[in-house]
Amino acid sequence: MLTGGHRGSDAGKGTQLKNVETKLIEEFLVETGDYVRERYAARERVAVVAKAHASDLLTEVDLTVQKRAVEAVARAFPRDAFIGEEEGLARFPANPDGRCWVMDPIDGTYNFVRGLLPMFGVSLAFVEHGVPQAGGVLFPVTGDLLIAERGGGAYRNGQRIRVSTVRTLEECSLGVDFGDGGDRISLFERGAGLLRAVGQLRCLGCAVLSLCQIATGDADAYVHLTLTPWDYAASQIIVEEAGGRASRLDGGPLRLFDGKRGVLFSNSALHDAIVELFD
Amino acid sequence: MLTGGHRGSDAGKGTQLKNVETKLIEEFLVETGDYVRERYAARERVAVVAKAHASDLLTEVDLTVQKRAVEAVARAFPRDAFIGEEEGLARFPANPDGRCWVMDPIDGTYNFVRGLLPMFGVSLAFVEHGVPQAGGVLFPVTGDLLIAERGGGAYRNGQRIRVSTVRTLEECSLGVDFGDGGDRISLFERGAGLLRAVGQLRCLGCAVLSLCQIATGDADAYVHLTLTPWDYAASQIIVEEAGGRASRLDGGPLRLFDGKRGVLFSNSALHDAIVELFD
Repeated sequence: MLTGGHRGSDAGKGTQLKNVETKLIEEFLVETGDYVRERYAARERVAVVAKAHASDLLTEVDLTVQKRAVEAVARAFPRDAFIGEEEGLARFPANPDGRCWVMDPIDGTYNFVRGLLPMFGVSLAFVEHGVPQAGGVLFPVTGDLLIAERGGGAYRNGQRIRVSTVRTLEECSLGVDFGDGGDRISLFERGAGLLRAVGQLRCLGCAVLSLCQIATGDADAYVHLTLTPWDYAASQIIVEEAGGRASRLDGGPLRLFDGKRGVLFSNSALHDAIVELFD
Repeated sequence: MLTGGHRGSDAGKGTQLKNVETKLIEEFLVETGDYVRERYAARERVAVVAKAHASDLLTEVDLTVQKRAVEAVARAFPRDAFIGEEEGLARFPANPDGRCWVMDPIDGTYNFVRGLLPMFGVSLAFVEHGVPQAGGVLFPVTGDLLIAERGGGAYRNGQRIRVSTVRTLEECSLGVDFGDGGDRISLFERGAGLLRAVGQLRCLGCAVLSLCQIATGDADAYVHLTLTPWDYAASQIIVEEAGGRASRLDGGPLRLFDGKRGVLFSNSALHDAIVELFD
């Protein structure tokens, strides 16, 4: 990439971020980037297994990244809970109000395995009382690192980012992911008005990429019927700190374990119009 | 990118391609890459205008790339026709059986202007009797160059490429682009069975990326209701020479100026099943 992606260890340089949890997220993602890039470059030799169905994939890279994050968090905060997509950590804590860390080691595993462009990201968030307090997403191949903490703003490679100012559905670039079977049919039905009204429709197969594009102003909204916490914990605070808005699909406040009721992320300006269009 | 993208002038190295038109395509794309990468890196300063509607964008980069291709072709083959997406060259020749060159200077202009990842490509094909004889697609930022000529095979950065061996819709990764208004509604209706049956659905907003992914085996099929010749001329021969198949949506033979009747590209194995599912 020639677009100034970050590959060093100074991701936070120039930001105002200061919390110790944010620092852990930043350092973990920067360190992990080299490993993921190396495995992606040799991906024809990466071990892959199918999970629930033929296109629900899991690789050794997902497992290794999550294992390293579990270890890094345990060293620094041994009493904190850890929720991750893989290896039996996809559980919701008995007490969701405690401190916990939420990870998707590779969001977009299918794209990691198959795809001309590297449309996948590593996502790690720190959550208190069900509300993300800090979050980082790394796109390992381009080296783009997005990071935010509550009240501190959102940054891409050390540069402050802001959502778009798009105000009309005609100009809206909407991201969706259709998921499987029942979800997909339901989205076609319940989202029919929205899917037809927007200017651009994208389905990238990587929620964190679609969400981070809202934070950088490169897209305007994203809807999903059943997003799991590790898919949006980090991106939620990045979008919010960039001036965007996250809610349930009905417009109600989004808590971390509410994703199964559907999520809507937007640049704020379009939020109410989209809630109204969605049955 | 660490995946072995090509940025030098030896794109054809290791291939068996030998036609003079193929050589022109290759040299033009390699030379053009530097310019497009440089403009993408500084894209906040690229002049953009809207064409038919708010999200139908045109940049100075599209115009410059097409102008350079027109000049390169005119120098080498002054009597050949030139069809391009921009600047009044979006015309079909009175005699489509003559020699002509078909270009999309930037396929995915919207993604060039807006998007965290560089999902756009430069596409140039040489066509005789309405049939692509040689075609090249460059993804300028990653440096990936795909090129093929009739009977000579398809190559990515000098390495022979082959379509996937996926045989079931459950495993199929399907690319679509919904286009605007009427087209989009029609695709939701006519394609309902297909859109629900496939394992993965992608909408990248860049037809040449979706098509080249079929050639490299990273996706399995692509459908579109009204694709224009410059969107698929080069990719068609790349897909076919990689072992894939191109047809109209009804399964009939695809000619270059037939795209308005809809197109289907696949890895061959899935072709008939998709024709049947599409009303």
